[in-house]
Amino acid sequence: MTGASPVARLSLNQRTTAEWSLREAIDGCVRAGLPAIGVWREPVAEVGLDVAVRWVRDAGLRVSSVCRGGFFTGADPDARKLAHEENLRALDEAAALGAPTLVLVPGGLPDGDRDLVAARERAAEAVAALAPEAGVRGVRLGIEPMNPIYAADRGVVSTLAQALDIAALLPVEQVGVVVDTFHLWWEPDVHTTIRRAGARIASYQLADWITPLPADALLGRGHVGDGHVDFASFTRAVHAAGYTGDVEVEIFNADVWAAPGDDTVATLTDRYRELVEPHLH
Amino acid sequence: MTGASPVARLSLNQRTTAEWSLREAIDGCVRAGLPAIGVWREPVAEVGLDVAVRWVRDAGLRVSSVCRGGFFTGADPDARKLAHEENLRALDEAAALGAPTLVLVPGGLPDGDRDLVAARERAAEAVAALAPEAGVRGVRLGIEPMNPIYAADRGVVSTLAQALDIAALLPVEQVGVVVDTFHLWWEPDVHTTIRRAGARIASYQLADWITPLPADALLGRGHVGDGHVDFASFTRAVHAAGYTGDVEVEIFNADVWAAPGDDTVATLTDRYRELVEPHLH
Repeated sequence: MTGASPVARLSLNQRTTAEWSLREAIDGCVRAGLPAIGVWREPVAEVGLDVAVRWVRDAGLRVSSVCRGGFFTGADPDARKLAHEENLRALDEAAALGAPTLVLVPGGLPDGDRDLVAARERAAEAVAALAPEAGVRGVRLGIEPMNPIYAADRGVVSTLAQALDIAALLPVEQVGVVVDTFHLWWEPDVHTTIRRAGARIASYQLADWITPLPADALLGRGHVGDGHVDFASFTRAVHAAGYTGDVEVEIFNADVWAAPGDDTVATLTDRYRELVEPHLH
Repeated sequence: MTGASPVARLSLNQRTTAEWSLREAIDGCVRAGLPAIGVWREPVAEVGLDVAVRWVRDAGLRVSSVCRGGFFTGADPDARKLAHEENLRALDEAAALGAPTLVLVPGGLPDGDRDLVAARERAAEAVAALAPEAGVRGVRLGIEPMNPIYAADRGVVSTLAQALDIAALLPVEQVGVVVDTFHLWWEPDVHTTIRRAGARIASYQLADWITPLPADALLGRGHVGDGHVDFASFTRAVHAAGYTGDVEVEIFNADVWAAPGDDTVATLTDRYRELVEPHLH
């Protein structure tokens, strides 16, 4: 890789600079020399898909992923049908944006429902129903296992091993998994499981696990290096699995959001170059 | 079990009524007709072990467990030696109190240390070193797998499966596992793993997972029935595994602590009778 830029695979997930509009995030990436951006559907919708497609193309950016589909664990069949249709729209958008991956956040338990086993089964069924639709659009579904702190209200798929079990039944070009350090850093044997994931890895996302947890624990993600995650061993495992895609930094944190976007991008670029990139080859 | 009291196996873990002294907690159990108490070392130390032993004996209470040993993941060998010696004292106390189980909280990552794999190995080694000491005292070590929310700063053993892997190498009468609903409710295939645990189950502890998480996420445990845990299926699995010991209610929650102790005991007794006890036989 002699001569390649050290940030040749670095992508800004736009939620990391949540105060920026899509336009501002694109411009911020260009200013910082980042080659890729992970976009969210809501800010794309604000400007319209066609405009968003033109902006990222004109800026010369890759779209590393679209966040997010999923939310298909509703107990009501009508709700699941609506979720399926919404996911088709998300797949269309990802295809138009040239994103290889639609990140799937499975969804939590329905109100008052305590049957986690059944919710997980519904998630697996919904992924299976979407898989061929992803295939015809040339986009891959990325099942995102989420830290168990989110199991009740956001994501019932809690481990990489569990996500792989769901994906394993479906074609690898249609269904992969998202490896996010914040969500998975604690998982027993995760480095072995990452290697086993191999070509199933559809996205690699970075954020640190920090303590003490902030008052809003859902915003408890830190810059790479500020917390307890061992990014070196994690990244070596992802590299050893054969992953060659972009590496997204996705940080949910009120303090990070309050900082100027350019400062945030500068910090995450420095941390990536120091703590992640050396382990990617 | 015809004729047995519906609370014949219910135990108050004294942290649930954190404002009560040991004396007050013992009296509260007696007033409420509870047959057992889970004690913590600090309040026992406040009155002295001999006094505590006499009090629980005179009150006719069983001590279902002593909380807590462990905290043996230090990187420094001297720190681990001190932890081992502290755990011997905890075992002595558990034996004197007639408690079948010393609950082990493994401990977190040392400051600035990100090697979770190594910390977990040290935890396993420390349990192995303590096991024969537990055996000679007639007490069983209960490895407590903890919700991953605690993995960095309190407990590096994160799943029941992982706790069982550590215990499996050691005699079943010396080393068991703690099944705590708050810690394990999200674990994939946990009901199967509980059944597999069988005679390894050294303690069954109850608290609910509530959302939204309170500002202090470490105090985010609710009364049984207030959250997302499926106590029926959990309890049936514990029963099917052959567990016949006491069932402790252990709730860390600032609002619960602010309530009068007798009210808290009344609430947890009602919830236990309604949501747990019917599934124990």
